[in-house]
Amino acid sequence: MVAIDSDALAAAKLLAEHRLPGIVVTDAAGKPYAVLPASQVVRFIVPGYIQDDPSLAGVLSENAADRAAEKLRGKTVRDVLPEHLRDVPAVHADETIIEVAATMARFRSPLLAVVKDGELMGVITASRLLAAALKV
Amino acid sequence: MVAIDSDALAAAKLLAEHRLPGIVVTDAAGKPYAVLPASQVVRFIVPGYIQDDPSLAGVLSENAADRAAEKLRGKTVRDVLPEHLRDVPAVHADETIIEVAATMARFRSPLLAVVKDGELMGVITASRLLAAALKV
Repeated sequence: MVAIDSDALAAAKLLAEHRLPGIVVTDAAGKPYAVLPASQVVRFIVPGYIQDDPSLAGVLSENAADRAAEKLRGKTVRDVLPEHLRDVPAVHADETIIEVAATMARFRSPLLAVVKDGELMGVITASRLLAAALKV
Repeated sequence: MVAIDSDALAAAKLLAEHRLPGIVVTDAAGKPYAVLPASQVVRFIVPGYIQDDPSLAGVLSENAADRAAEKLRGKTVRDVLPEHLRDVPAVHADETIIEVAATMARFRSPLLAVVKDGELMGVITASRLLAAALKV
């Protein structure tokens, strides 16, 4: 869980260290507000001209990876959030599997925050939800 | 790793059991061909009328979760693949981080297959790639 105005590089390191598919982003009041997927951060660190023409990636030296960290430096989590994963509601601990699945499907999010009595309890990932739905 | 014409329910169970953010899908020749994210399977098991109006999810009983498995039964992996994650190329073990990131960014995929000497070596996730790029 990271705050919306916290350091984007620190958030990326958290995703990396814990091998998370994504992370819950909280607003200024500390409430779940958005979701930042690891794949979005990857998109952010790839230079724009390479996204337009991926064949150019081969021309870059491995030093380009060092510059990847530079792309995140000085940015906040807000700067790297994808548009469609802002205002993602938390689900409540007592919601049914199908309610949680519906929210996840609507936002195309890899995970959702779970709250109970107004407190953040944790996070549910798409694969954890499948485990519950399929009883594996 | 699952074959394109294999059982969708079995693939969903694999994602669930191993808590994977997604799985590599191989074509009839056994070559990496596509990526099936867990979030896509979640989308698939939510009834269409609930995706259109999520408030309806609350009306369903928890039995709806049992029916989720029914939605996958008789379907193949091909049936549940998202359009944009077909024809996702594998990356080579000797590609640079920035080359892998560029391919991941282009397909907006949570993971990619990694091949070496024509053999599938494994899978790299977005968070694993961030770990390499940020040296954490």
